[in-house]
Amino acid sequence: MKFRRSERLIDMTNYLLDHPRQLVPLTFFADRYDSAKSSISEDLAIVKETFEQRGIGTLQTVPGAAGGVKFFVKVSREKAEPFVNELCQLIANPERLLPGGYLYLTDILGDPQIVQKAGRIIASAYADTKIDVVMTVATKGIPLAYAVASQLNVPVVIVRRDSKVTEGPTVSINYVSGSAKRIQTMVLSKKSMRQDSRVLIVDDFMKAGGTVMGMISMLEEFNSQLAGIAVLVEDEKIQERLVDEYLSLVQLADVDVKEKKISVQAGNYFNIWRG
Amino acid sequence: MKFRRSERLIDMTNYLLDHPRQLVPLTFFADRYDSAKSSISEDLAIVKETFEQRGIGTLQTVPGAAGGVKFFVKVSREKAEPFVNELCQLIANPERLLPGGYLYLTDILGDPQIVQKAGRIIASAYADTKIDVVMTVATKGIPLAYAVASQLNVPVVIVRRDSKVTEGPTVSINYVSGSAKRIQTMVLSKKSMRQDSRVLIVDDFMKAGGTVMGMISMLEEFNSQLAGIAVLVEDEKIQERLVDEYLSLVQLADVDVKEKKISVQAGNYFNIWRG
Repeated sequence: MKFRRSERLIDMTNYLLDHPRQLVPLTFFADRYDSAKSSISEDLAIVKETFEQRGIGTLQTVPGAAGGVKFFVKVSREKAEPFVNELCQLIANPERLLPGGYLYLTDILGDPQIVQKAGRIIASAYADTKIDVVMTVATKGIPLAYAVASQLNVPVVIVRRDSKVTEGPTVSINYVSGSAKRIQTMVLSKKSMRQDSRVLIVDDFMKAGGTVMGMISMLEEFNSQLAGIAVLVEDEKIQERLVDEYLSLVQLADVDVKEKKISVQAGNYFNIWRG
Repeated sequence: MKFRRSERLIDMTNYLLDHPRQLVPLTFFADRYDSAKSSISEDLAIVKETFEQRGIGTLQTVPGAAGGVKFFVKVSREKAEPFVNELCQLIANPERLLPGGYLYLTDILGDPQIVQKAGRIIASAYADTKIDVVMTVATKGIPLAYAVASQLNVPVVIVRRDSKVTEGPTVSINYVSGSAKRIQTMVLSKKSMRQDSRVLIVDDFMKAGGTVMGMISMLEEFNSQLAGIAVLVEDEKIQERLVDEYLSLVQLADVDVKEKKISVQAGNYFNIWRG
C-alpha cells in the first residue's frame, strides 16, 4: 500500500519524536511507506524546516550508505522563556511556604506536562554532548530525570538512600550534605551502570550541592565521568556552593518566612545556553 | 504568514501528541496557522485517519461552538502485542535472578523507551474512563506512573514510606503487606490530592496486592474513588490475591531458583481490554 505525503508526514513526525537521537535510515522510511528514497528525502526536508520553525527540534542528516536522520529536541528560546517565567510565578506563590522555609513543590513535580516541558528544555542544552546515562537521587528528582533521559534516549539510574533487595549488590558511599553538614549515605545498584559512562546528573532542587557532590563521588566508584548537572530549581542564597558548573531553570532568590514572600527568577539556563 | 498543509500537519501532530485528552478548539489551530476552519477540519480528518491506521491513537470530535478535537492515545493490539512479548523475553533472562527469588528489573524500569511504551499501552485501556489522578508508591512505580499520567493528562501523586519535610502535612495509614504479612506504614501529603478524585493506581510489580490495598485504604482518607489498577508485572504464583480487578502487562508464572528458570507470559491486558 502506497502512502500519501500527508500520511507520511504525520507518521514520520510521530516516529521521530518518539525516537530522539536515534539514527533512522532513509531506507527504513522508504520501506515503511513503500515510497522512493527521493520522496522520503523531500518529506524529511519539510519535517526539518517545520520542526525548526516551530521550535520543536531539528533533524541532523548523516550522509552515506549507513546514513539517515537523527531527531534532536531543541526547544527555542522563544518557547522556553515563557515557560520558565510561568514556572517562576507558580513557585513564587506564598502558599508554598512550609515550616522551616521549605517550599512545597510536589504539585509542580507531579504535573507531567510541566515536567516534560522542563525535561525537553534541559535536554535541548545537551544536544551536542555525549551522554550515556542520566543519574538522579530518589525520589523527587525521578520524574524530571526521566523526562530528560527520554529526550536524550538514554537510561536513568537512581541513587537511593538505602539499599533494596530487588536491586542486587550495591555500591555505597558517604557524603556530607552541604547545608546541614550531616554525613549521609547513598547507594547505587552495581548492575545499574556500566563502567566508563558519561553521566548527566539531574535533580529537582539544589541547595549547597551536597547531594550532587555525593553523586559525583559515586561516579568515581563506577569509573564514570560527569557530563553535566541540571536542576529545576537552585537556591541562590547559598554562600558556599560546592558545585560550579550546572544548569538551572529557576533560581530561588529569597524566602522570607515572616513576610510570606518568595522571590524567584529565571535560572542560569539562558545565560549559559544560547540555543 | 500562511502555512502550507504539510507544515500544519507536522505541527498539529506534534501539538496533539503533546496535549492528550485536552479539548483543542478548531479556532486555536485556525489562528495558529492563519487558515480557514474548513482547511483545519480537513487536516484533522487526515491526522485522525493516519493516527488510527498507524495504531497511534484517535481524535474525538466535539461538535458545537465550544467544540474542537481531543487526542486519545490508543496503541493498537498489533503494536502492543509484540512489545509485551519482547518485554516477556527480557524479563525471562535468568541473569535477573536475585537471592530469595527476587527479580532484577531496574534496567527495564530505567529505560524511558520501554516505560513510555508501557505507559501508552496502559493509558489506551483507560481512554473511556474518567480519571483525575494517577497514584503510585515510591520509588519503582514512579516512572511508569508518569508515563501513564502524561498520556491521561492528569497529575501523579506519590505515596511514600516515610514523610518528608518538603511534603507538608501528611495522612498516614497502616496496611498489611500481602506476602510477608507485616504491618507497614504509608503516607501521602495532604495537599497532593483533592477530595473526591477518581484515582488510577499504577505500580511496577504486584505480588499479593498488599501495597495496592494500602493505597486503596489511602483513597478512603481522601474521600476518593478507585478508577482502576494497572501494573507492569504481576506475580501469578500468589495463592490469595487481595485485589480482583486489575490490568497487568506481564505475568510472572514461575521462578525456579534452583534451575535458574524464569517463566513469563503476557498479562491479562489483552484478555480484558479489547482495543
